[in-house]
Amino acid sequence: MLLLTLDLLGIFVFAVSGGLLAVRKRLDIVGVVVLAMVTGLGGGLIRDVLIGALPPPALEDWRYLVTPILAGLVTFLWHPAVGRLEGVINVFDAAGLGMFAVAGALKAHEYGLGPVPAAMLGMLTGIGGGAIRDLLAGQVPVVLRDGEFYAIPALIGSAVAVTGVHLGLPLPVVAVPAAAMTTGWRLIALRRGWTAPLPRDVPPPT
Amino acid sequence: MLLLTLDLLGIFVFAVSGGLLAVRKRLDIVGVVVLAMVTGLGGGLIRDVLIGALPPPALEDWRYLVTPILAGLVTFLWHPAVGRLEGVINVFDAAGLGMFAVAGALKAHEYGLGPVPAAMLGMLTGIGGGAIRDLLAGQVPVVLRDGEFYAIPALIGSAVAVTGVHLGLPLPVVAVPAAAMTTGWRLIALRRGWTAPLPRDVPPPT
Amino acid sequence: MLLLTLDLLGIFVFAVSGGLLAVRKRLDIVGVVVLAMVTGLGGGLIRDVLIGALPPPALEDWRYLVTPILAGLVTFLWHPAVGRLEGVINVFDAAGLGMFAVAGALKAHEYGLGPVPAAMLGMLTGIGGGAIRDLLAGQVPVVLRDGEFYAIPALIGSAVAVTGVHLGLPLPVVAVPAAAMTTGWRLIALRRGWTAPLPRDVPPPT
Repeated sequence: MLLLTLDLLGIFVFAVSGGLLAVRKRLDIVGVVVLAMVTGLGGGLIRDVLIGALPPPALEDWRYLVTPILAGLVTFLWHPAVGRLEGVINVFDAAGLGMFAVAGALKAHEYGLGPVPAAMLGMLTGIGGGAIRDLLAGQVPVVLRDGEFYAIPALIGSAVAVTGVHLGLPLPVVAVPAAAMTTGWRLIALRRGWTAPLPRDVPPPT
Repeated sequence: MLLLTLDLLGIFVFAVSGGLLAVRKRLDIVGVVVLAMVTGLGGGLIRDVLIGALPPPALEDWRYLVTPILAGLVTFLWHPAVGRLEGVINVFDAAGLGMFAVAGALKAHEYGLGPVPAAMLGMLTGIGGGAIRDLLAGQVPVVLRDGEFYAIPALIGSAVAVTGVHLGLPLPVVAVPAAAMTTGWRLIALRRGWTAPLPRDVPPPT
Repeated sequence: MLLLTLDLLGIFVFAVSGGLLAVRKRLDIVGVVVLAMVTGLGGGLIRDVLIGALPPPALEDWRYLVTPILAGLVTFLWHPAVGRLEGVINVFDAAGLGMFAVAGALKAHEYGLGPVPAAMLGMLTGIGGGAIRDLLAGQVPVVLRDGEFYAIPALIGSAVAVTGVHLGLPLPVVAVPAAAMTTGWRLIALRRGWTAPLPRDVPPPT
């Protein structure tokens, strides 16, 4: 019950970020709700398709669908107020990132994938929804371009969690610190403005 | 046999819309045929992947592949004539939307999904092909942005069909009126210029 | 062992093309590595999802993940040198195209698909990774627009291979010449500047 609530909360916050981008891009109500759904559920859906967990649990429990729809409608109606909560949203988004990445990695591991693929799928669970959101809104995924520390903490947290479980440590002992590490690192990076490296010596575009 | 013909006709018309967009975007013959295929088959393929109906029937029957390829080639060769048929195409497209959405929702329901996810997947079956078409052509999906009544009739028709079957009504009694409702609503919206709501008070882009 | 080495080499070269595009688009290190992975593995992943070969072998063998990651990192660090190797890369890319298309078609056929769908999936295996690469980098897939002979040799090679196997010829007798044909045709087209037809009489964009 606690896990379900946390999961739905994570989906809600991710979905709000999708809805907000849709509003800024002046999409209509369909666009706002679809971007909210895609952002909230997309990472998990890609993971479930790739590991063959079909139909995905998000399509078997209506609460997983109603949550991002609600987030979309709330954002559609009250986007100026929602937009002002950006600081709060960033914190929840970092929490969602940690939770989704670690849960995604452990699920992939449970389905028989080795540590390296499971860690990659954990990262993908964390960043996939936002990447589809950006594609649908017509922009290169933020996670690939701005040098933000977003994918890297997700990958490391996933790797730590999978390694722990692979070594036989009990799941909660592994999952909670790994998710907290991802979230904390993401928040510190945000606050201090850390950036991921950009390639050097790129000639100016012609 | 009637059903197969209707289905292939729907795919053909959707595929023509993909081919026409590709021509307008000045893609080459590969682009025209690929956009035709993706638009004609994309919605059904996404649905089949998500419910785990793999390999999708569209890949097991060559007629499902040859139909959109033909539509693509016809559009490539005679696009000025095809483009002038836009009024006719819109009618068939609305018919395809109703048919695909309702058939998609009922298939998802048959695969064990509850009414809410099945209705969502019905909508996705109806709008998915056009969304991938737009992404590949480098534009934000029309269905998300112009306030056109396209996704909403598809969703309502899907919901009506799934609810009916869920309540135990016989399939044809449910499917035909639900598809007709989606199609009719879409056509009326087109004729009268109805639009879906846009978010209010969005600050101008900076 | 030879096959695995060839396969990994193909992935490496495709991945380098992804990394180079990411560098040119000024993505960060995450973008360079992700585009490398997506370009190297994307075509095969789409094929495996569509035929239901889940989880895909590329996620069950860590070497399939480490190879494109390495290609991404090498490109990130030494992109000026890597970029100067474009002529060499084109040759390897053509080799990868032939190999991936034919192997993809034969795998789809093995999973029970008929010759037409199997040939289409072979082409998709060859061109899919590059198409996702372009979408993520914010451009219309090159394979759809520049009239380059890329998809067409892949499709013909796939069709030849599937037809041969369908007629009962032994696999190597079929696969090697089919892949060589695709690769050779692609290279000749590159050298001679052959182009695929563009639609005629397209009115200028308004």
